[in-house]
Amino acid sequence: MGQSITFKKADHLKEKPGSAKLGFGKLFTDYMFEMDYSTEKGWHDARIVPYGPIQLDPAATIFHYGQEVFEGLKAYRTEDKRVLLFRPDKNMARMNQSCDRLNIPKIDEKFVIKAIKKLVAIEEAWIPSEPGQSLYIRPFIIGTDAALGVHPSATYKLLIILSPVGAYFGNSMSPVKIYVEDEFVRAVKGGVGYAKTAGNYAASLKAQTKSEKLGFDQVLWLDGVEHKYIEEVGSMNIFFKIDDEVWTPALNGSILPGVTRASVIELLKKWGITVKEKKVSVNKLFKKAEKQKLKEVFGTGTAAVISPVGFLKWEDHVIKVANGKTGKLSQKLYDTITGIQSGKIEDKLGWTQEVKLQKEKEAVAE
Amino acid sequence: MGQSITFKKADHLKEKPGSAKLGFGKLFTDYMFEMDYSTEKGWHDARIVPYGPIQLDPAATIFHYGQEVFEGLKAYRTEDKRVLLFRPDKNMARMNQSCDRLNIPKIDEKFVIKAIKKLVAIEEAWIPSEPGQSLYIRPFIIGTDAALGVHPSATYKLLIILSPVGAYFGNSMSPVKIYVEDEFVRAVKGGVGYAKTAGNYAASLKAQTKSEKLGFDQVLWLDGVEHKYIEEVGSMNIFFKIDDEVWTPALNGSILPGVTRASVIELLKKWGITVKEKKVSVNKLFKKAEKQKLKEVFGTGTAAVISPVGFLKWEDHVIKVANGKTGKLSQKLYDTITGIQSGKIEDKLGWTQEVKLQKEKEAVAE
Repeated sequence: MGQSITFKKADHLKEKPGSAKLGFGKLFTDYMFEMDYSTEKGWHDARIVPYGPIQLDPAATIFHYGQEVFEGLKAYRTEDKRVLLFRPDKNMARMNQSCDRLNIPKIDEKFVIKAIKKLVAIEEAWIPSEPGQSLYIRPFIIGTDAALGVHPSATYKLLIILSPVGAYFGNSMSPVKIYVEDEFVRAVKGGVGYAKTAGNYAASLKAQTKSEKLGFDQVLWLDGVEHKYIEEVGSMNIFFKIDDEVWTPALNGSILPGVTRASVIELLKKWGITVKEKKVSVNKLFKKAEKQKLKEVFGTGTAAVISPVGFLKWEDHVIKVANGKTGKLSQKLYDTITGIQSGKIEDKLGWTQEVKLQKEKEAVAE
Repeated sequence: MGQSITFKKADHLKEKPGSAKLGFGKLFTDYMFEMDYSTEKGWHDARIVPYGPIQLDPAATIFHYGQEVFEGLKAYRTEDKRVLLFRPDKNMARMNQSCDRLNIPKIDEKFVIKAIKKLVAIEEAWIPSEPGQSLYIRPFIIGTDAALGVHPSATYKLLIILSPVGAYFGNSMSPVKIYVEDEFVRAVKGGVGYAKTAGNYAASLKAQTKSEKLGFDQVLWLDGVEHKYIEEVGSMNIFFKIDDEVWTPALNGSILPGVTRASVIELLKKWGITVKEKKVSVNKLFKKAEKQKLKEVFGTGTAAVISPVGFLKWEDHVIKVANGKTGKLSQKLYDTITGIQSGKIEDKLGWTQEVKLQKEKEAVAE
């Protein structure tokens, strides 16, 4: 891909936050990546520019018909000061799957990874280095046509913004409380559930707000057809340890194919643990729990990596999982994946990609 | 509602387009209405300002999680130069229903109608006056928080933009060709199908594009659960004349409650025609057609008002409806509703609201 990336220097750099102040996605770095699409030119004008507001016509497609896809991944600082990305190729492949569903022109996956690396290298000083901290990377594409007919946009913008984020857990993982949502539905087969697109998250807000009011952390989504089968938890995939096996809902068109999900499955198989991707009915799950066979429950996602579930409610049934503590397997998966991400554990699976800081910075065409 | 609406004059007004150039939603007027929401102030700073780009932080909720609702209605020019809105109270009531589903703070319906009237009065010269033409009004609300956590935004913008639009049909109504979509799904119960929100339209683009490639104008959506029951056509509601009765899918949580749909049902009842809001299976519909009992099919919506369907395809079954022509009932409904909208037919139902041009213009606080 011959396209070059131009760089426009900011007049003024922001003060870096103290590491105690990092939350999730509230602070943004000094620069962002931007690229435009038109039917005539394709994706063009790749540039790294000062982070700042974007200007759009009020009739732009994104404001009316939600034509959008996004991704989320992280850059990690190792103890020896290198910077690693975790499986960015998986994120970019998924972004193109999402583009396909949302009628958005595909991206050159390798080129966008190159853009991410260049932007991260320029913003190296923003990557926090305490345990669990990282630089969150958010690429997204929006339709920008100023036209109200319900049609795919002819023009788009791809942006990448960066946010230094704190450790999801404090000193130790804390299991979350979830309940089975039986009124609201996140997605259904034939819809956009497998795509990482704005509308899925918009649809989830009401149930999430309800769960917080009821004193829970997240909702467990059921399928939209029979309201019987488990799909996801909040915005994570979900796993169940049943005796010595691990079950997770099979990808069915309405579940997001998580990068952490795929990584957990690969690790478990490598460790000789039976993983079953299958339809998991909530009824069967609660029966397994009654028989003391449900040993651990955990969510997987880029933000928390592994999020143990300590408490599960479905109608009048309540389960305390692993005595409300973090299970051994959950802990081992967390330690292994975060170990690979932070360079503490050797990456035998080729999951990480190093950002060559000096080389990337030098290659910026001013 | 004591809130006043400020007005900022544009330096330069655009040239008005010739009536031949009007399409749908491609041209916008000189001014727009804007209003902001914050937790502390509620909806505030109502203003009419020159139409132009809006600036948003790239982390704004709308770009990532699609928190958005919109409405669509029209202002019509009567022969005696008055300006009428068609049932704006219904649109605003629906906007609040959409807000509720999308976790967006509710609007003061009467105040937003007042804002619409003021804006339309100021832009009076943009209202086209040939038959079938009108000024399309698009109010919409977007979440604007610069934060990547998946939570409802704490800040919002409500905008109203105006677009002069051409006649949907030329000299006579032309029936459309539709096919039954059996792969993609628009919405499911428990989701956001009944709300007028961006994500529903994003999800529909792929099927719409497919239908155009196959030589059809629109798709007929089936329910997301059993893929058996008819929901909507494209972005319209749908009606079937079966012998002397009229059937339309009952509102079930995944169908948009159209203002034109409600108006058609009221008119039919007034005319003594039996209207059944019920589950309509595609199988039953095609059986009725086989027995020559399916007399007319038409879609209803703000854009076309009544859109006759002349050709219907489901798997290998094909129906030509009303010999591919516009049925008598479709024509009568179209003539009646557009007659009321344009002031040609006396509005005995109290559906229209006149925009008091002089009064509204005088009341603008500069």
